[in-house]
Amino acid sequence: MSFQVIEIKKSVLDSNDRQANMLRDQLRQKGIFLLNLMSSPGSGKTTTLLKTIPELARKWRVGVMEADIDSDVDAHTISSTGARVIQLHTGGMCHLDAYMTRQGLEALGTDELDVIILENVGNLVCPAEFDTGASKNAMILSVPEGDDKPLKYPLMFSVCDALLVNKIDALPMFDFDMDAVKQRAKLRNPAIEVFPVSAKTGEGMESWIQWLDREIQNWKNLKG
Amino acid sequence: MSFQVIEIKKSVLDSNDRQANMLRDQLRQKGIFLLNLMSSPGSGKTTTLLKTIPELARKWRVGVMEADIDSDVDAHTISSTGARVIQLHTGGMCHLDAYMTRQGLEALGTDELDVIILENVGNLVCPAEFDTGASKNAMILSVPEGDDKPLKYPLMFSVCDALLVNKIDALPMFDFDMDAVKQRAKLRNPAIEVFPVSAKTGEGMESWIQWLDREIQNWKNLKG
Repeated sequence: MSFQVIEIKKSVLDSNDRQANMLRDQLRQKGIFLLNLMSSPGSGKTTTLLKTIPELARKWRVGVMEADIDSDVDAHTISSTGARVIQLHTGGMCHLDAYMTRQGLEALGTDELDVIILENVGNLVCPAEFDTGASKNAMILSVPEGDDKPLKYPLMFSVCDALLVNKIDALPMFDFDMDAVKQRAKLRNPAIEVFPVSAKTGEGMESWIQWLDREIQNWKNLKG
Repeated sequence: MSFQVIEIKKSVLDSNDRQANMLRDQLRQKGIFLLNLMSSPGSGKTTTLLKTIPELARKWRVGVMEADIDSDVDAHTISSTGARVIQLHTGGMCHLDAYMTRQGLEALGTDELDVIILENVGNLVCPAEFDTGASKNAMILSVPEGDDKPLKYPLMFSVCDALLVNKIDALPMFDFDMDAVKQRAKLRNPAIEVFPVSAKTGEGMESWIQWLDREIQNWKNLKG
């Protein structure tokens, strides 16, 4: 096994927002971009990362933290990309907060990394409530989940800078209105960037990776 | 609008397990079967209920409580079946507990009902941690979510009496091993009943409804 497994604990000492802002500021000073990737279980976070990491790795040094309640399935999968990977076990917890994220970063080691991706616990509710200290938040909604999700899980759509609508190769099988999703997501968050993609076929992934690359560059320009 | 919307509050007064056992006992004495239906967002809880309710309604008087963080989308949909329906708003909360369920039942009214279905918040993590007082727990895992979910969300599979594997009409599109899911689910819970179904096409729904009918009858035999 080419990655560590970390059992993380919840902080009871400090407010999460303060911890998150402190962490974000420290990462900015080091020129490290942290992406917090959220979604329901099974929307394709890991497959998306399998396609995203090699593209980012042409230019940036990439690390990944895989958060899960249990199991090391995702860290095993992601370690095949050659990126530096650790598995975070939340011990039943449904989300990561900033203190838990910091524990993960310390275990991963941030030296000689430009970009760190946190794959949050699969959950469309709780992770939206806890700022992890990430530079940017992204979420995935997959076509089979349905186009009504921005109505039913509004906070998640509000806090994300980017929305990947994944599994567009399955659009013919499902009654899914892409325009309605865009409209409903922008109602919650007018600034959200929407990327219809298929992580499986690669369709649409270029725009997402270009956006991510630009955000990493912008973040690194803020350094020091 | 043919249903009420209830803003429910969390109990801070009593342990959830005690509340849940008390509620379950009261429902048993009244001969009312409460089904707690859980899943990720978008796995097809509402579509499954649209197909299940008319079948149950041939024999039983059915009521439905739709729990959501926000929106009345599901209650609108379900009210088309003619069942008695209310919408529960959790105010951002990621699950229902027994006290919240009791508030819902009081608002719905249990008189002249045999079966009440609680559609829990779409979340594969938190609802598993809180006994609602239901007679039986069921969950839906949909094919597009992937066959690794019993490994990654073990508690949910442990607490459920029945597992519906939904969207089997989409099996040709996805790399999903039904035998692996059954094996992984039974590893968590040897007694779990697994029903591969398509709520969309109706395939497999008969076995699920037969099981539910039998459980309702068994529950009513315990009355008094």
